[in-house]
Amino acid sequence: MSTQEVADKLVSLCKDGKYDEAYELYADDAISIEMPGMPGDEVTHGKEKIIDGYYEWANSIEEVHGGTVGEPVVAGNHFMLPMTSDATFKGQGRWKMEELCLYQVENGKIKKAQFFYDVPDMG
Amino acid sequence: MSTQEVADKLVSLCKDGKYDEAYELYADDAISIEMPGMPGDEVTHGKEKIIDGYYEWANSIEEVHGGTVGEPVVAGNHFMLPMTSDATFKGQGRWKMEELCLYQVENGKIKKAQFFYDVPDMG
Repeated sequence: MSTQEVADKLVSLCKDGKYDEAYELYADDAISIEMPGMPGDEVTHGKEKIIDGYYEWANSIEEVHGGTVGEPVVAGNHFMLPMTSDATFKGQGRWKMEELCLYQVENGKIKKAQFFYDVPDMG
Repeated sequence: MSTQEVADKLVSLCKDGKYDEAYELYADDAISIEMPGMPGDEVTHGKEKIIDGYYEWANSIEEVHGGTVGEPVVAGNHFMLPMTSDATFKGQGRWKMEELCLYQVENGKIKKAQFFYDVPDMG
């Protein structure tokens, strides 16, 4: 798949809430990078651990209030996707966030994902 | 300035080729991150060194054939800007590139810039 095709497929699966399938777009040795200052590892290595991290995050949610997936912007082997989410986390309160998700594609798979957002005050 | 205002100002200055003024949007202690595998430092610390790097790059250009600056996508304190350039570099040939430029804003200044693009085969 081309970068544009991977981007379109990711958007479509995220919009449909098909996250299991979305992670199939990742390469086995993909890496995923969060903002410094967040709980958990800043860099996660390997699709398996990235999926574990997703489920850990999903299980920490008490209630989802909303969320959007924007249109991808493609440049060569990279694409960027704006997303928003609004959820209440167990024992942590509500966090409404906007982020820019940056993906690098290699051989038709996501090789690297990096997320940019305002780090909340963890108190 | 808000993140949107910094983004709009950067776009306007880049479109007008006013790069000297564009760098005034950077904080003194800003950092700038290029792709791994490129010549030069991957991370540049401080506005002064970032500007030096820009002039070094600009002076390596033999001829500019084209370039575009896209529309910014803003999320919280970050914004992303797609750009393209097409130039012949002294003794290195022509490089037509597309990139996604990612900026983090703090107190109305660019605190961090990170550039995503396909790294050319340096032979």
